[in-house]
Amino acid sequence: MTLSIPEKDEITAQDLPDGATDEMTAGMTAAEAVAIRLADETRDQVDRPEAPPRRSRPWQRYLEAELGLREYWYPAARSTDLPEGATFAVKMVGEELLLVRKNGRLYCVEDRCAHRGTRFSERPLVLSEDTITCWYHTWTFDLDDGALRCILNEPDTALVGKTGIRAYPVTEAKGLLFVYIGDAEPPPLSNDVPVGFLDADMAIYIDEPNVLHANWRLALENTFDPGHHFIHNWSQFVIESGFPMTFGYVAKKGEEHAEVSYVLDPDGPLGFSRCTKTTELIFSATIPGKNGRPDTVYTAPAAVGRPHEELVADFLAMPPIEVGIYLPCENATVNFPAGMTTYDWCVPIDENHTRSFMLGGRRCVTEQEAELWRGEVGHREWKVPTIDKFLVDDNKARQSMQTFYEKENGWDRERLYRPDLEITMFRKFFSEHARSIQTRDKLVGPRSRGRRS
Amino acid sequence: MTLSIPEKDEITAQDLPDGATDEMTAGMTAAEAVAIRLADETRDQVDRPEAPPRRSRPWQRYLEAELGLREYWYPAARSTDLPEGATFAVKMVGEELLLVRKNGRLYCVEDRCAHRGTRFSERPLVLSEDTITCWYHTWTFDLDDGALRCILNEPDTALVGKTGIRAYPVTEAKGLLFVYIGDAEPPPLSNDVPVGFLDADMAIYIDEPNVLHANWRLALENTFDPGHHFIHNWSQFVIESGFPMTFGYVAKKGEEHAEVSYVLDPDGPLGFSRCTKTTELIFSATIPGKNGRPDTVYTAPAAVGRPHEELVADFLAMPPIEVGIYLPCENATVNFPAGMTTYDWCVPIDENHTRSFMLGGRRCVTEQEAELWRGEVGHREWKVPTIDKFLVDDNKARQSMQTFYEKENGWDRERLYRPDLEITMFRKFFSEHARSIQTRDKLVGPRSRGRRS
Amino acid sequence: MTLSIPEKDEITAQDLPDGATDEMTAGMTAAEAVAIRLADETRDQVDRPEAPPRRSRPWQRYLEAELGLREYWYPAARSTDLPEGATFAVKMVGEELLLVRKNGRLYCVEDRCAHRGTRFSERPLVLSEDTITCWYHTWTFDLDDGALRCILNEPDTALVGKTGIRAYPVTEAKGLLFVYIGDAEPPPLSNDVPVGFLDADMAIYIDEPNVLHANWRLALENTFDPGHHFIHNWSQFVIESGFPMTFGYVAKKGEEHAEVSYVLDPDGPLGFSRCTKTTELIFSATIPGKNGRPDTVYTAPAAVGRPHEELVADFLAMPPIEVGIYLPCENATVNFPAGMTTYDWCVPIDENHTRSFMLGGRRCVTEQEAELWRGEVGHREWKVPTIDKFLVDDNKARQSMQTFYEKENGWDRERLYRPDLEITMFRKFFSEHARSIQTRDKLVGPRSRGRRS
Repeated sequence: MTLSIPEKDEITAQDLPDGATDEMTAGMTAAEAVAIRLADETRDQVDRPEAPPRRSRPWQRYLEAELGLREYWYPAARSTDLPEGATFAVKMVGEELLLVRKNGRLYCVEDRCAHRGTRFSERPLVLSEDTITCWYHTWTFDLDDGALRCILNEPDTALVGKTGIRAYPVTEAKGLLFVYIGDAEPPPLSNDVPVGFLDADMAIYIDEPNVLHANWRLALENTFDPGHHFIHNWSQFVIESGFPMTFGYVAKKGEEHAEVSYVLDPDGPLGFSRCTKTTELIFSATIPGKNGRPDTVYTAPAAVGRPHEELVADFLAMPPIEVGIYLPCENATVNFPAGMTTYDWCVPIDENHTRSFMLGGRRCVTEQEAELWRGEVGHREWKVPTIDKFLVDDNKARQSMQTFYEKENGWDRERLYRPDLEITMFRKFFSEHARSIQTRDKLVGPRSRGRRS
Repeated sequence: MTLSIPEKDEITAQDLPDGATDEMTAGMTAAEAVAIRLADETRDQVDRPEAPPRRSRPWQRYLEAELGLREYWYPAARSTDLPEGATFAVKMVGEELLLVRKNGRLYCVEDRCAHRGTRFSERPLVLSEDTITCWYHTWTFDLDDGALRCILNEPDTALVGKTGIRAYPVTEAKGLLFVYIGDAEPPPLSNDVPVGFLDADMAIYIDEPNVLHANWRLALENTFDPGHHFIHNWSQFVIESGFPMTFGYVAKKGEEHAEVSYVLDPDGPLGFSRCTKTTELIFSATIPGKNGRPDTVYTAPAAVGRPHEELVADFLAMPPIEVGIYLPCENATVNFPAGMTTYDWCVPIDENHTRSFMLGGRRCVTEQEAELWRGEVGHREWKVPTIDKFLVDDNKARQSMQTFYEKENGWDRERLYRPDLEITMFRKFFSEHARSIQTRDKLVGPRSRGRRS
Repeated sequence: MTLSIPEKDEITAQDLPDGATDEMTAGMTAAEAVAIRLADETRDQVDRPEAPPRRSRPWQRYLEAELGLREYWYPAARSTDLPEGATFAVKMVGEELLLVRKNGRLYCVEDRCAHRGTRFSERPLVLSEDTITCWYHTWTFDLDDGALRCILNEPDTALVGKTGIRAYPVTEAKGLLFVYIGDAEPPPLSNDVPVGFLDADMAIYIDEPNVLHANWRLALENTFDPGHHFIHNWSQFVIESGFPMTFGYVAKKGEEHAEVSYVLDPDGPLGFSRCTKTTELIFSATIPGKNGRPDTVYTAPAAVGRPHEELVADFLAMPPIEVGIYLPCENATVNFPAGMTTYDWCVPIDENHTRSFMLGGRRCVTEQEAELWRGEVGHREWKVPTIDKFLVDDNKARQSMQTFYEKENGWDRERLYRPDLEITMFRKFFSEHARSIQTRDKLVGPRSRGRRS
């Protein structure tokens, strides 16, 4: 199983590092060139004696993106959260949304009356096939474009056509309801989801979303953090299976760019994919002694007593894991577990909370097979071993840095090391390519252009 | 049963709209003239394409009154909260108060020692007939005027006569304890309560006060909001009785002033009374279809299948409901329910919380009749149908706008419509007539002038 | 039993009040001279008609010390909180600490990884005899000096020797773990604890620490507040024993300095000791009547009906109680109860919370006697009567002023009286002698110099 990542055919000047010569780039793909450039341009951010202040970081837009990106599709809820005739309220990317499914059509509007701010969701009244009526003062809005349709107790009001609420494009795919947060004409959903996710044969098992007390960037970085694997030595899956975890997927020095391929297709998702090539597997490390005391060798619990060659061979026997990261905020890990793909959307709720949608994907030939996967088979083969016994430790880790970043000036004080280079490369890539940044003032501005019906 | 509202005999220039001629005002009472002026002066605040910013609103003092009004009487507690010999602590209009009843006399002082701020109420010590002693350091204050009377462990202190705590005028009426928040000589209580409330034959049933998470203005506006009645279609009383609610008591365009009579007697309460005259009763409304789809007619659930004429006749058969609003913050609705009056004081606690005292009044000929009303009869005939089965929905509504006004800049963003005209008129009236506005800096200033004994 | 307080032999100019003549100081000790000077220099701060604003107070450093003092030893935990091989996380003086006991040695480091701020304590990994490893990214720090020792998943990192976390000197005494908060070379522990506390024959019973919602200064001042004793008339011990409390230990006017001896030994703790000399015992006080009404005499409940001479004789029959206060934040009350010493450290947690360590000391001749004291005997003879039945009321009092000081500008508004003179004297003494003040910006600065191994 391999990813088929669309690529630009030609390398353009902006893809290349400064001073690159034709000779240097001969035979390179654009994806490779971009990786080299991003590594070059952020290498001075790691292994520094003093943490540089925030304002000198080369990823300013990333720092501004406390509330996430704007002009993107995000999963807002599961399809099952919104049966026919129902409504569902959700806060996302700082916005308060009301999802509606009526007569088989989907709608999403601001959950806030244009009159005096009452939340529709406290008593949702869908009194016609395509309107929402505020339960307090009868203002009635078009679910399609948010325009004021009428006011029940003031039939001749002059306000019709002059005011309204925000309406959001919404669509359904793979058991999720996706909402477009932005003002521009939305791109196809396929631009904002991982490569392959929408493929017809990809069946998706959907876990219950988790709300994390962590900014979305801390949650997302964890999904591809090359230095984080150590935490899984304490995961229940590792303890039960006896399959030891390496201490990290750290690239060889100077070869970090070779781990990642940036995805640059202007008509597809933007992000990168990592397929570990140069990392050495570390199951054991030496802590030097001090003052003449002996060194201590620490070995991963499950690796104790097993030859290094055997451990490496076990790892290499597995299908290669490919980690993909895409804008606005999602991860897709192919062959994790083997033969399956684990998806994780880290959707910002507000500055300090993230809703994590974890999904298990498997390609299925028949609809019957897919149905079993979305039910008990996915539960048994993906959810229990992958989420409950393994990724639960990542949720602990994601939240463990929140105090530092929220209250202790962490973005100024963080002191990165070389394995963070894939993180710094991504931050710069993000700053270069994000369509727009969500900000507090955009939340209270005039209404968005509605969706086209 | 009719209200007898005292009126000014003469119309003065300030009562009239700009440019009013003698001809225009011939035969007008001052109450009518003021209503016309207030409607004229606030009409440009409703039905606007863009919400005007807060600073351009013609009700600036109302906007400043987050903590309520100053120089007014407010109900602080029920008489039963304070038996002989007891104390009762309450926060109100931003101030922290301690009520005391000792040897049949009532007192109210600041619940905060002048020495180092300890709250008396944590261990209230009334060691003589008219003093409160701080349980920490024995400072002893006069309950009448707040002056330091003595210090038990420093008998010769030089501070006597030089310091003290605030003391508040307090009085008892109709089973409530009223406290005067202000520094000036208090007016008679009758100036600050609804017309008729203190009448000898008015018996009052007192419900347990509710603490609402809502600014007092949002709570008070709900009590006379002409557009809010729609919410009661979901009230238990309506469902059980089958008596449908109209969608609002919205005046005819250009006749809004005719609904309200402003009360202007300088020796009585200030406010207004509404007795619906021009409104049409709406039990059914049309939501226009879009893109060629048919209109939807929505009818109040309890009105479905009943002829409009019959519904109107049922309403007109009821005694006319008169809604009175008075400064500082109270409502009196005569003939609601028929033959009774429902009172509601929306007393500010702090910027975001309100204590609502809801009372049921009925005129009683004998004391025996009054006693029954204050007990089981009032409970059965007023409290259960009016509060538990009806006004409970208003408490939901009052709190539903709080997030918008507290956190989302609602006073700038609200976009009013024509039925809000009675609200805008009141806001302007309030700004013109409020004796004083409570502010944070007044809470920590020097002590108030004490009450006269 | 008497305290042996070390004293300076010579009086220096700075000890004396302005304009002191040789004649005035003839026969004075430095301790006496300092007390006179402090009383003189703060007397104008009490009994004032208006509370002076904070900025004019002569104890500015005390006002700045919201988070406590820096460059001092503090108790962080009980020895039993940290068995061999364990770790213990604690917040103190605004800093987040991790205590470690490994192979019989004690360590204390910042509980925050230098990389991205993860708390070690969420999964403490002591993988060698003297290191702590972050469970997220394998950064491994020297427990002695906080230096980065190695990174398990990046063995060749260039960061070793260039970064690290704070390390704190730590030591153990009398069943407590003391940590030094500061950057300088720490003085001996004996400089920062009460005189006599470390004596070999002093056995210590340790009560469970209490977390108080009170700034540490409000907690500490309570321990020596001459006007606070009135609160104990409601203590269970007083009610059960019938032994009445005086209304305060208030010195005679002009003799306040005679109550206190300042401890000035530069090689020992700094603070003062009070041994009541001039106070009169007040068990009864008169509240003057007003407007011709009679006076009220209030007598402490347990004193009612007993002759004043008998009450005084009972008090004088007790061994004299000596209250000692020492920097940074501790109290030692000798002969309270008789034959025992009660210690109380008011350790700042943050600006609004204090951890109070209350300890009961008794001199014991044999180790067997000491062991009994630390167990059931201390529980029965000290903890139950002294803490549970008496000092629990002080914890109520300490918290009763917090709202005023935290939210109502109390440091500006407090209006002190003459019995507070010992408090004002201490505040000035503190401002003159505190080695350094802890501040928010010191919490996020570069790491402290580590402890020397």
